[in-house]
Amino acid sequence: MIVEIAETLIGHGAAEVLITRLPAEPAKSISARFAFHRYHPSARTLRVASRAIAAPAEGGVYGPVAVVTAGSTDRPVAAEAAETLAWMGVQVMQMDDIGVAGPQRLLSRLDDLRQCQVAVVAAGMEGALPSVLAGHVPYPVIAVPTSVGYGAALGGLTPLLTMLTSCASNVAVVNIDAGFKGGYLAGLIARKHVQS
Amino acid sequence: MIVEIAETLIGHGAAEVLITRLPAEPAKSISARFAFHRYHPSARTLRVASRAIAAPAEGGVYGPVAVVTAGSTDRPVAAEAAETLAWMGVQVMQMDDIGVAGPQRLLSRLDDLRQCQVAVVAAGMEGALPSVLAGHVPYPVIAVPTSVGYGAALGGLTPLLTMLTSCASNVAVVNIDAGFKGGYLAGLIARKHVQS
Amino acid sequence: MIVEIAETLIGHGAAEVLITRLPAEPAKSISARFAFHRYHPSARTLRVASRAIAAPAEGGVYGPVAVVTAGSTDRPVAAEAAETLAWMGVQVMQMDDIGVAGPQRLLSRLDDLRQCQVAVVAAGMEGALPSVLAGHVPYPVIAVPTSVGYGAALGGLTPLLTMLTSCASNVAVVNIDAGFKGGYLAGLIARKHVQS
Amino acid sequence: MIVEIAETLIGHGAAEVLITRLPAEPAKSISARFAFHRYHPSARTLRVASRAIAAPAEGGVYGPVAVVTAGSTDRPVAAEAAETLAWMGVQVMQMDDIGVAGPQRLLSRLDDLRQCQVAVVAAGMEGALPSVLAGHVPYPVIAVPTSVGYGAALGGLTPLLTMLTSCASNVAVVNIDAGFKGGYLAGLIARKHVQS
Amino acid sequence: MIVEIAETLIGHGAAEVLITRLPAEPAKSISARFAFHRYHPSARTLRVASRAIAAPAEGGVYGPVAVVTAGSTDRPVAAEAAETLAWMGVQVMQMDDIGVAGPQRLLSRLDDLRQCQVAVVAAGMEGALPSVLAGHVPYPVIAVPTSVGYGAALGGLTPLLTMLTSCASNVAVVNIDAGFKGGYLAGLIARKHVQS
Amino acid sequence: MIVEIAETLIGHGAAEVLITRLPAEPAKSISARFAFHRYHPSARTLRVASRAIAAPAEGGVYGPVAVVTAGSTDRPVAAEAAETLAWMGVQVMQMDDIGVAGPQRLLSRLDDLRQCQVAVVAAGMEGALPSVLAGHVPYPVIAVPTSVGYGAALGGLTPLLTMLTSCASNVAVVNIDAGFKGGYLAGLIARKHVQS
Amino acid sequence: MIVEIAETLIGHGAAEVLITRLPAEPAKSISARFAFHRYHPSARTLRVASRAIAAPAEGGVYGPVAVVTAGSTDRPVAAEAAETLAWMGVQVMQMDDIGVAGPQRLLSRLDDLRQCQVAVVAAGMEGALPSVLAGHVPYPVIAVPTSVGYGAALGGLTPLLTMLTSCASNVAVVNIDAGFKGGYLAGLIARKHVQS
Amino acid sequence: MIVEIAETLIGHGAAEVLITRLPAEPAKSISARFAFHRYHPSARTLRVASRAIAAPAEGGVYGPVAVVTAGSTDRPVAAEAAETLAWMGVQVMQMDDIGVAGPQRLLSRLDDLRQCQVAVVAAGMEGALPSVLAGHVPYPVIAVPTSVGYGAALGGLTPLLTMLTSCASNVAVVNIDAGFKGGYLAGLIARKHVQS
Repeated sequence: MIVEIAETLIGHGAAEVLITRLPAEPAKSISARFAFHRYHPSARTLRVASRAIAAPAEGGVYGPVAVVTAGSTDRPVAAEAAETLAWMGVQVMQMDDIGVAGPQRLLSRLDDLRQCQVAVVAAGMEGALPSVLAGHVPYPVIAVPTSVGYGAALGGLTPLLTMLTSCASNVAVVNIDAGFKGGYLAGLIARKHVQS
Repeated sequence: MIVEIAETLIGHGAAEVLITRLPAEPAKSISARFAFHRYHPSARTLRVASRAIAAPAEGGVYGPVAVVTAGSTDRPVAAEAAETLAWMGVQVMQMDDIGVAGPQRLLSRLDDLRQCQVAVVAAGMEGALPSVLAGHVPYPVIAVPTSVGYGAALGGLTPLLTMLTSCASNVAVVNIDAGFKGGYLAGLIARKHVQS
Repeated sequence: MIVEIAETLIGHGAAEVLITRLPAEPAKSISARFAFHRYHPSARTLRVASRAIAAPAEGGVYGPVAVVTAGSTDRPVAAEAAETLAWMGVQVMQMDDIGVAGPQRLLSRLDDLRQCQVAVVAAGMEGALPSVLAGHVPYPVIAVPTSVGYGAALGGLTPLLTMLTSCASNVAVVNIDAGFKGGYLAGLIARKHVQS
Repeated sequence: MIVEIAETLIGHGAAEVLITRLPAEPAKSISARFAFHRYHPSARTLRVASRAIAAPAEGGVYGPVAVVTAGSTDRPVAAEAAETLAWMGVQVMQMDDIGVAGPQRLLSRLDDLRQCQVAVVAAGMEGALPSVLAGHVPYPVIAVPTSVGYGAALGGLTPLLTMLTSCASNVAVVNIDAGFKGGYLAGLIARKHVQS
Repeated sequence: MIVEIAETLIGHGAAEVLITRLPAEPAKSISARFAFHRYHPSARTLRVASRAIAAPAEGGVYGPVAVVTAGSTDRPVAAEAAETLAWMGVQVMQMDDIGVAGPQRLLSRLDDLRQCQVAVVAAGMEGALPSVLAGHVPYPVIAVPTSVGYGAALGGLTPLLTMLTSCASNVAVVNIDAGFKGGYLAGLIARKHVQS
Repeated sequence: MIVEIAETLIGHGAAEVLITRLPAEPAKSISARFAFHRYHPSARTLRVASRAIAAPAEGGVYGPVAVVTAGSTDRPVAAEAAETLAWMGVQVMQMDDIGVAGPQRLLSRLDDLRQCQVAVVAAGMEGALPSVLAGHVPYPVIAVPTSVGYGAALGGLTPLLTMLTSCASNVAVVNIDAGFKGGYLAGLIARKHVQS
Repeated sequence: MIVEIAETLIGHGAAEVLITRLPAEPAKSISARFAFHRYHPSARTLRVASRAIAAPAEGGVYGPVAVVTAGSTDRPVAAEAAETLAWMGVQVMQMDDIGVAGPQRLLSRLDDLRQCQVAVVAAGMEGALPSVLAGHVPYPVIAVPTSVGYGAALGGLTPLLTMLTSCASNVAVVNIDAGFKGGYLAGLIARKHVQS
Repeated sequence: MIVEIAETLIGHGAAEVLITRLPAEPAKSISARFAFHRYHPSARTLRVASRAIAAPAEGGVYGPVAVVTAGSTDRPVAAEAAETLAWMGVQVMQMDDIGVAGPQRLLSRLDDLRQCQVAVVAAGMEGALPSVLAGHVPYPVIAVPTSVGYGAALGGLTPLLTMLTSCASNVAVVNIDAGFKGGYLAGLIARKHVQS
């Protein structure tokens, strides 16, 4: 059924269709039906199209949007956001593993961060990175708590609460592991800029 | 001390200074020190300036941004968002009491809503309005849960959770009763548009 | 043992027996013992009888009762409610996937909804549909939260809380995933009407 | 403003208007404006009308509906439900302090309970009464948890959870202390009967 | 290692040794080492001894103690309590499935209950049975919440809270699924009686 | 009304009546009506009788029962338990402020503790005392969590959970601040002993 | 009684006595009894002695220990820690309002922080400062969550959880608002150093 | 990749590298690459080095630090702490199964405990041991809650809360099951002592 919906959408003029939360096995058989396809195994996103598909870092007429992770276990959620942004035509600047445990890593990326228009930050455990990053940039930061971690991380509830109570005024929050929603909101914001 | 900070900021060129969570009594004595001032008693915001101060609905070179309440008890939080937006130079289109209990009220405002670029929605109790409204508009909706309500509303935690789990992709959430943060984020987004 | 209870009940004059939360395997062997049987694989309900068994949409001397889902993942819970209502002799009008993310879908079913006497609404994630639907109809809405969803949906606790705090006065709530209880309560209410 | 709304409603033909959660002081001054009025001080409900107002036990063309309390501290919530039912034209059969700690009290009222068509049960602390009562009657029981109690009663969350997990199939639940909603739902159900 | 501890204990004069939470497989091999043994598969208790072992209902110089379940899914926890009591030399009067959903079942067992000196009551879901039973007997009731149930039963937290807030003064509570502790406490109390 | 109930009970032969949770002011006027009375200001219990009233430590034909506090802020709850025991004719051995922070204090009271038949232990904050004490005595320990403390004590929920998860098998738990219930259960158990 | 305990302690050779959580009124009358005294009104600590009392920043033979706040509302908790350290003879280096919202403030204090041996960090709302600070220093950081904040800060539970899940390995946590405990632990650690 | 990082670290002069949370299978293949290695199967720690590796009890130029468990199920967490301390060059004094249920076991180890400089205490269920132990020693106790246990232990949240609310002033807490962090903090503290 997903195949048919995707084919119909493309038949009706959609340049590219994004399917989220798709395991590798069905992704394979669906991909076979389309001229162009891109499956991201940890993000579990499939993009299918009748024309070439850009990787997040490659192209995009909007952006750039920073997609940031605190640690390597947050990467699948960030990858879902990045693929969503690429599907929306937004260029992604990815920055990995710059969490607060190693403060130099964030400081060394500030110049890059300041070139962006929005940031999506995926972080688990204490979830402090969106707060800290937001203190350095003047634009909206979309915080995505992740369910990685153990014990008092409460399956992502702790970073969720941390992000909601951020002292920085420019942090908005979405659901735990909601990489798609984080990317989509950042994309909506970024797409306004290019009209300038 | 607030007086001195405000005077210093204006002395250094700030057009207008916003003070939040300020009770009526100190607001009165602070106001006396500035040529122009505007205190909103339920929002508990004070704006002071050396030039005329615009009401949220009046002026603003950016926007408009919709500031929406589900019920009348959500108005103080919405007013804080509206004053914040006005302070940022963003025009506000206010829509009150259009919660889901009376569905015609929302439907009758759809034309107005579609003219806006962002929406800030304050809602307590079940907090369903941001989800419903977001299904009708193509732009980011900043959801602000309010602590009004009783029993299972859990002091605002229930609308907070409702908003975070919204099936609509364009809903981002801030802390309970965080009218300033809701308005500030909406303002950051809206100020990009006018540059077009 | 279930077989014997069912046989005894039918032997004592029960027209039809309903068994809930029954996996497919035992359902098969139990079915073989009865002249008429109807197993619903996702609802995991088995109805056995010594006379023909009506599908929810087909017959029933009472009703109709609306059985509504917000999204496709809520369908198994709704199906349990629908089979329960059919077993009680109540006609079911099923409406699927009319959640708040696509507001037109609910609006297009309002005429059908207004013909019903009660509604059972199964919804997960933010669980806003019962509130919204209840604003359009003058009769009791039995809200059934479902455990689908992730993160802040808290295994169904979030839609449960949303439904309990509904601003609409005509919403009552049952336990998470309690399709049988939702259907049974709606059936009790609907069976009073036919006496008119 | 409440006065004007009430006057307008009655001017447009409403037989009687119900105002809930109203303190004694404003109730007094509002009452003075209407020919007939009835204020219940613990329920904090005011009913105003241009014709005589019936007490819950007195009249009503529908019902009877049982309004039951587990203990004396639950009475204000039950009274709100009873006044709501009376306002809807439903006769109320009130039964107080028949909670599970004294099992004979419930058993002695079973004959009365069996004459009713619906029951509204207000209970705090362990909130077991709706479950127990529902085992004795064949009709819907609307359970209203109350916030009385201390410690592990968690401000009403414990009876709320108890009622939601009731093993009886005929129990539906509303918000903590939601006497109006409990009464209103019971009234909606009861008003169908009289049409027979 | 368990084998050695048990052998040592019996070698040092223990009449009988109780091992709890033991799966069937190791129970088999341990049993082979002792002249007398009794394994209860759902309670997962093993009793080993150098003399004959009494079933809970059979013997015991103390008691009787009532061991009661609300529903059939609570039986494993009750069985653990019963085996513990038998191991302590206390006679058990077992009463199954007398939960509040079918009130006649409890009422029909009151005469038996009144012959006991203590009761252990295992109940899940709403956990109302200990409260109701305690209203009928003058002795301590040890309430054991069980983790059976779904949704708002919260893995046993809901019956735990219900039991703690019981309006009956003679109800004490132990941990979720703590059949051993429930039985042990009841046994300690019952063993005082026989000295009379 | 309390006066009348108490007078009626004593008129019908009750030796002594216990009233709990009674503020000082009404206690004064009620006391005036009885020949003998004893009000405990921090326990807020009033005992009235037509004959002399024993203090907890003084008399009692049953017991002794240990009534123990971890810290001085737990004393009001313990006093309620002690007065309840005295009213039941049980002698009380009170031991104050022997919490785990000063381990010598508990060790110095072990001889006294071993003379008792049951213990009621009131403790707030981490609530560890019942567990520790129960390791030293062979009889039932009734643990009463108190709501004293701050922060992570969660109004008594933390000691409640600590006590429920005690590794000692002889600990049963009652509601937060439930001094009466703790004393009553201990009294029920102690009154069996004297029959020996 | 506090006066007598303090006098006894000093009579027995204590150089200085620390009393915590003491309101201003009793502090005044107690102070009058001692040759030297120091009351901190927001920390609500009183130190009394028979010799001169050092302010936290002044003296101390151990340390220095950093006492840090994220925002100005965290100062009373930090002051309680600082007074405790001074009472233990540890020098305090106080750094206020260097929370993550203004990242330059922390960076500008790194040289001072690196001279310390331990840090006590008081932070409310998202509580991210201990994590961030701990990434810059090689010594133990004692994190004290504060109950300031609103909404999702949950009275201090959110910073508590944030601090517990810190990705930095050198962060240990104490109870909400536990300034004394934070200072005391830091003092215990610091007093080992001076022996070098 | 872990192999390469470890080889690089050792190549750059690290005496020994610690890898945590490593399953047995990869540990085997990584070990093969190093001259010296030590894998602890229940702690799931691997230490690799180019020189001999000391067991926790064996060597270390700092310490000793006590590593204590309440029960045998807490041992894997304690082992992670012990291996961490050994890796830091700190000698470990391990004491197992001295929880509060058997108070003599702790008392018999007090002499050993008093020789240590810090203690790491791993405990699940009610988590009372750190409080009790801290009352006997004058140094910092690092409490590590474990997720062993069932029911009201809430996956480790209950011992976490118990430890945070400890009445002893010398208890600091880390995350559930955080053996590494507990050991690391204790090591940081112990390493200061040797400089004396």
